[in-house]
Amino acid sequence: MAEGLTLPAAHIIDDLVLSALDEDGAYDDVTTRALVTPGQWGRGVFIAKDAGVLSGLPVAAAAMTSYNEEIAFDALIEDGERVSAGTELAEVEGPLAAILSSERVALNFVQRMSGVATLTRQFCDSIVGTKARILDTRKTTPGLRDLERYAVRCGGGFNHRYNLANGVLIKDNHIAAAAQRELTDIADVVVLARNSVPHTMKIEIEVTNITQLVEAIQGGADIILLDNMTPAQIREAVEKVQGRALIEASGGITMDVVREIAETGVDFISIGALTHSAPSLDISLEVGSV
Amino acid sequence: MAEGLTLPAAHIIDDLVLSALDEDGAYDDVTTRALVTPGQWGRGVFIAKDAGVLSGLPVAAAAMTSYNEEIAFDALIEDGERVSAGTELAEVEGPLAAILSSERVALNFVQRMSGVATLTRQFCDSIVGTKARILDTRKTTPGLRDLERYAVRCGGGFNHRYNLANGVLIKDNHIAAAAQRELTDIADVVVLARNSVPHTMKIEIEVTNITQLVEAIQGGADIILLDNMTPAQIREAVEKVQGRALIEASGGITMDVVREIAETGVDFISIGALTHSAPSLDISLEVGSV
Amino acid sequence: MAEGLTLPAAHIIDDLVLSALDEDGAYDDVTTRALVTPGQWGRGVFIAKDAGVLSGLPVAAAAMTSYNEEIAFDALIEDGERVSAGTELAEVEGPLAAILSSERVALNFVQRMSGVATLTRQFCDSIVGTKARILDTRKTTPGLRDLERYAVRCGGGFNHRYNLANGVLIKDNHIAAAAQRELTDIADVVVLARNSVPHTMKIEIEVTNITQLVEAIQGGADIILLDNMTPAQIREAVEKVQGRALIEASGGITMDVVREIAETGVDFISIGALTHSAPSLDISLEVGSV
Amino acid sequence: MAEGLTLPAAHIIDDLVLSALDEDGAYDDVTTRALVTPGQWGRGVFIAKDAGVLSGLPVAAAAMTSYNEEIAFDALIEDGERVSAGTELAEVEGPLAAILSSERVALNFVQRMSGVATLTRQFCDSIVGTKARILDTRKTTPGLRDLERYAVRCGGGFNHRYNLANGVLIKDNHIAAAAQRELTDIADVVVLARNSVPHTMKIEIEVTNITQLVEAIQGGADIILLDNMTPAQIREAVEKVQGRALIEASGGITMDVVREIAETGVDFISIGALTHSAPSLDISLEVGSV
Amino acid sequence: MAEGLTLPAAHIIDDLVLSALDEDGAYDDVTTRALVTPGQWGRGVFIAKDAGVLSGLPVAAAAMTSYNEEIAFDALIEDGERVSAGTELAEVEGPLAAILSSERVALNFVQRMSGVATLTRQFCDSIVGTKARILDTRKTTPGLRDLERYAVRCGGGFNHRYNLANGVLIKDNHIAAAAQRELTDIADVVVLARNSVPHTMKIEIEVTNITQLVEAIQGGADIILLDNMTPAQIREAVEKVQGRALIEASGGITMDVVREIAETGVDFISIGALTHSAPSLDISLEVGSV
Amino acid sequence: MAEGLTLPAAHIIDDLVLSALDEDGAYDDVTTRALVTPGQWGRGVFIAKDAGVLSGLPVAAAAMTSYNEEIAFDALIEDGERVSAGTELAEVEGPLAAILSSERVALNFVQRMSGVATLTRQFCDSIVGTKARILDTRKTTPGLRDLERYAVRCGGGFNHRYNLANGVLIKDNHIAAAAQRELTDIADVVVLARNSVPHTMKIEIEVTNITQLVEAIQGGADIILLDNMTPAQIREAVEKVQGRALIEASGGITMDVVREIAETGVDFISIGALTHSAPSLDISLEVGSV
Repeated sequence: MAEGLTLPAAHIIDDLVLSALDEDGAYDDVTTRALVTPGQWGRGVFIAKDAGVLSGLPVAAAAMTSYNEEIAFDALIEDGERVSAGTELAEVEGPLAAILSSERVALNFVQRMSGVATLTRQFCDSIVGTKARILDTRKTTPGLRDLERYAVRCGGGFNHRYNLANGVLIKDNHIAAAAQRELTDIADVVVLARNSVPHTMKIEIEVTNITQLVEAIQGGADIILLDNMTPAQIREAVEKVQGRALIEASGGITMDVVREIAETGVDFISIGALTHSAPSLDISLEVGSV
Repeated sequence: MAEGLTLPAAHIIDDLVLSALDEDGAYDDVTTRALVTPGQWGRGVFIAKDAGVLSGLPVAAAAMTSYNEEIAFDALIEDGERVSAGTELAEVEGPLAAILSSERVALNFVQRMSGVATLTRQFCDSIVGTKARILDTRKTTPGLRDLERYAVRCGGGFNHRYNLANGVLIKDNHIAAAAQRELTDIADVVVLARNSVPHTMKIEIEVTNITQLVEAIQGGADIILLDNMTPAQIREAVEKVQGRALIEASGGITMDVVREIAETGVDFISIGALTHSAPSLDISLEVGSV
Repeated sequence: MAEGLTLPAAHIIDDLVLSALDEDGAYDDVTTRALVTPGQWGRGVFIAKDAGVLSGLPVAAAAMTSYNEEIAFDALIEDGERVSAGTELAEVEGPLAAILSSERVALNFVQRMSGVATLTRQFCDSIVGTKARILDTRKTTPGLRDLERYAVRCGGGFNHRYNLANGVLIKDNHIAAAAQRELTDIADVVVLARNSVPHTMKIEIEVTNITQLVEAIQGGADIILLDNMTPAQIREAVEKVQGRALIEASGGITMDVVREIAETGVDFISIGALTHSAPSLDISLEVGSV
Repeated sequence: MAEGLTLPAAHIIDDLVLSALDEDGAYDDVTTRALVTPGQWGRGVFIAKDAGVLSGLPVAAAAMTSYNEEIAFDALIEDGERVSAGTELAEVEGPLAAILSSERVALNFVQRMSGVATLTRQFCDSIVGTKARILDTRKTTPGLRDLERYAVRCGGGFNHRYNLANGVLIKDNHIAAAAQRELTDIADVVVLARNSVPHTMKIEIEVTNITQLVEAIQGGADIILLDNMTPAQIREAVEKVQGRALIEASGGITMDVVREIAETGVDFISIGALTHSAPSLDISLEVGSV
Repeated sequence: MAEGLTLPAAHIIDDLVLSALDEDGAYDDVTTRALVTPGQWGRGVFIAKDAGVLSGLPVAAAAMTSYNEEIAFDALIEDGERVSAGTELAEVEGPLAAILSSERVALNFVQRMSGVATLTRQFCDSIVGTKARILDTRKTTPGLRDLERYAVRCGGGFNHRYNLANGVLIKDNHIAAAAQRELTDIADVVVLARNSVPHTMKIEIEVTNITQLVEAIQGGADIILLDNMTPAQIREAVEKVQGRALIEASGGITMDVVREIAETGVDFISIGALTHSAPSLDISLEVGSV
Repeated sequence: MAEGLTLPAAHIIDDLVLSALDEDGAYDDVTTRALVTPGQWGRGVFIAKDAGVLSGLPVAAAAMTSYNEEIAFDALIEDGERVSAGTELAEVEGPLAAILSSERVALNFVQRMSGVATLTRQFCDSIVGTKARILDTRKTTPGLRDLERYAVRCGGGFNHRYNLANGVLIKDNHIAAAAQRELTDIADVVVLARNSVPHTMKIEIEVTNITQLVEAIQGGADIILLDNMTPAQIREAVEKVQGRALIEASGGITMDVVREIAETGVDFISIGALTHSAPSLDISLEVGSV
């Protein structure tokens, strides 16, 4: 696979594909069992039906080979590469019944992940030449966060904190909760967080206006998240910070505005849609007998 | 919830939300732990930010109440109902820290499921007045098939077979495999399947032309799937069958053509996009302290 | 193994044998550990002590080889074959301690499954020459349904629906429940079921008299289950149906009456005793050192 | 439940019934869902159809109430009691759909366990007045050992060692393995075992003739298992031992000979058939609406 | 419990105590079952036999109440408090058999955790008046990291990064690995790490001499770990850093030198022995009948 | 490994190391991923930093090789052998990133287990020449009982009963509970236990004075546990028993008194500290690139 892309651990992928195969009844495929004999051999080609960025081919491979280790799966394209409609992605060969019974699960993974990678790549391409990075969020599909974060990387994006346990992000609700405890200066909130979490963690805080931003900087925040601001507001914020913290823009950012935002000088742009609203990339497996 | 909608079993939902909470690090939310005390109480409202069809609110409820049983979750809208931008969906009240730590997981479920229900409803609305039913497919998110099938029902759609184990669907690859065994008449393939599977199952077969269709009917197929046919071809097929089998149209069916297809007289229209490409419905949780 | 017999998936069998080995303390066999050294090698032969039909030998093999992969297990007979008292079924060779520690679990599976296959074969042999098929029921041992259904097939029987989720069977209690809702004509009950379940499923309904049977046929039932009827009543029912539905006889059917029932012309005879009351086939493992 | 009968731990039973409900598709019962509304209430009575000894009623209760906690399950008879054909065992009341969906699993447990208890009781009744105890063996159904051992106790029997890890039983194969290591005197084998296992364990050894028995006693064996001996041989063995060890008879012991064996003065008679070949006790659930 | 101490999530604790109860055979306690009747009620008091700091009492409570919910467990002391030999920690009352069967598991947790808290407190007390904090390490007992980190907090210590996934710590081996790739200036290594990990993470790096330290600071390291340095070397390092990074001392730090090290001005002192070598605190449960 | 030492089953070890690797985030090691490329190869040596007895090296091997099967792990010393500070224990070679990510887990197991073995060996060495055996207790680390019992054997000790389910030990609380039921003579308590538990189990009873001891012997106890007695009292007890039962001394036995106790003639000395208070043996992995 392309340089720098590390798949989730093999045992995580194996657990996911095994669960998916069970969910799909692949071990009790009544149609295939009725019509295909154990001795029949088959061959198939995975083909992209639309243009996009490939992600998840090794997961599709795991689905097929963990279903039946006699299936040989040869990738022709690496995750992270761009494909056109018609590109051949991989060849499989093995017991025909096994190929047919595991096909759908293999496709369900690679289509979804490639959908995420494709959308991510579109955003990344839109901001080429700026210093900004496209980030994912925690708005992932339950159970598939590892895979979707990997798909984001395949599309050229970067990952935000993995989850609530390994990164600090103080949101408006936390600020309100602190205010209830008489901590009305955001600088104090930042300091309180700093003293409470492991010293290895940075403090990121979400602000909605310049006043909050100034207080956050005074409190020593490491990262400022600008929530739902206009490009103009973002530009003002970037100037105000003067490099004393990293800056992340977030909130309903579409393809239309992403470049304008990137050009404000922010360090990061985080986009929930990468994982919650990417349409699948159309991929099919064309099977023939041998 | 609306009449006729049965949720997946409680223990299935509980397992899914627990896994999702673990995945999100909700039990070790360093930010909330640093800034919110156990004694602080909060209240929140789930609000739709776009128009659509609600699905998964009980799953969101399960995420929050299984995280902390002191959270009271009151649904204001039932799954399957239409909502507008601004509609209040549910109120929660309980320990503020618990609300904040479980919020994202609750939203991830209800946004995705409502996305599926909303897209399904759009297809169903498009064919009102015809006898056709909109069906889902096996192109679901790995691990979430139960929830997504439920979401399809919330949107007014119907479910196809659950998986490979509980329904027969003879596809082109099965026909080709049978041909390799000298079974070149599709009627014979149907009969072979009939004799091999439990007597409680119907035989559905995918055909791509009228010749195949005629043989399938001769073999006694219960259901004919017309794959990627034009409305004109579908109309011809419907006439040919003359009610001797149920008819399902499938293959790349978009909102543009769905009504024309429904008007051919088919019984079912199955659409993979319902579950593999539905964008999330935007829903937010607005939290305040009490 | 004999043509047409497909074992449950390997990972299902592996899970079952691993659980059974744990349950039997096989990984902490204090006696063998005290008396047999790691270096001692052994050989053994599985021998039938009674006549019957073999089933489950690959499961016994899995128990031994998953306990210790150095054990070589060579089947001499295939599942589904008839054996006499004294028939040698398989040879094993490997570390003696491992053979002794896994022996009981291996035997517990193959003895029970062969018991089911043997009883099934006796019923099948009794109806040779009729068109009827012997079916199993859902009265299986909790946790072992996959294995017992396979054992039924080894004995020449066929499987009924797998479980409540993948087949419709309307029983007297469902009819009574529908009556409570003003659905007193069984034809209406059949139609209601038809409209509610996936279109891939047939509708089977249990009737206890001819009136019910007539209504069921009028409602378009695909399969009629005749519950606890005498051969004469069954014969009358078969004539009444005239091929418009498949017919299954059920309810306390013993070896004494099975042929008479089969000769009435029913399609299926389902027998709970196949799985809930089959005595084990006596099989032993005779072990020697090498 | 009767004095002295302790059920397996609740969480073990809960796991077993949950797995069985999943296996039976009880959470997706398409028939019941189509025909019974959530609001319909039902009542049922468990009735023995044959005479026997009850065992497993609390497991049946757990199956139903864990399926739906609104089901009220009232036992009328306690495990371990004798029942006649027609005896009412328990009443249930609750949501009709839930009763119908969980009925089969509940019955599968209680029928099987009562079958074991009934057969055990027949053996126990046959030896009344002797000092011998009827024991089970490790020839149990994989996955159900805890329940079957409990069923044996319900029938008046006693349990042998739980598994290979918590009791020593030196069999012929162990003796042969030791002989290979130049330990040809059985007394030495007993001593070797004694020195190797935790001091809390007794040493039981299987012998097939009087010579072996004498050596075993010389080695200080705590328990002697007489394998497949005739009553006359057993009587001779009992006299030889003179109370220096406990004596257990085993091997193909049927109802015909069990009393004669018990009268030889042995302490224990172990019988594999209790758990591997007991036919189910016929029990039905008669359901009505409320 | 004392202000600021948050227990691991309830379901984590429940899983741990359930596994431990299973491991200890608590659900099949043959001795208690033989000698104590279900009706007997008991009362007990947990008593410290040595002085120390309490930790894990809620875990002990969970062990007992999850074993049998009829046990009432009343804590008299909160986790984090100091206790003397003889201090009564908690009272329990409930079924005597249940108390006896779950006692050992309850004690195994609270003794071990209190041992960790006690040793941590001794280190913390030694450095009172300095600004340094005592930190744990990843040298925890496999499976118990959550509990042991909590125990460290009970003793007044702080937690380091949770694990390899949620904190960056560049060790000598990483530096050597980078050197192999021509990255010989540590400043470059820090920058490479910075560009590769989520922007929410700080960069901590281990150095063994002043040259490395200077390069690390130049690279912008957020935290410097001084490995196995003498107090004099540490003092020099602190002066060199001049507040541009946080400083952590580590490596074989004993009670004898901990204060001297704290007085150098380091921010943190991390000590593996807190979790890998703390002796248990002696606690007993004195049980009486009621 | 040394003669007679049997490791826990491979699947138990595999489960433990996999859980530990997950707990440590080894599959998402952000530091290593950032700085070490997949192609870099490394070599390392495990070295004892203190003298002691080795235990758990195969577990460390399993941690590394199950993390990445390309790691070759060559043990230079066998479990149970004595090592000095500086002894090389094992060499590893393989992908450098994998070695670095699995190192800590491997060490956490082998350090802890070697700590237990080392302390056990010290006790065993103290009583050389007497007939007494050093035993472990149930005071083990939750989740690690199998490994710690193995470590005790590595140190020359013996194992007591595995858990509550496979050995009888009547303690003071059981005696008190029996007294409540009018069983005031300890002989009667022993007999009651004898009649209730499987015949394969011995009866061990704890006594605190000579009166109890005499009654226990009269009741036919197989083993007497002398709780917290002085050497003089123990000597008197040994004389009183006259070989009619095995004798075990227990209760706060330290290195100072263990020999004196062993010389009284007891058969066993059980010591909780072996597993609850053994400090880790210091072992390091020195890694270099290749």
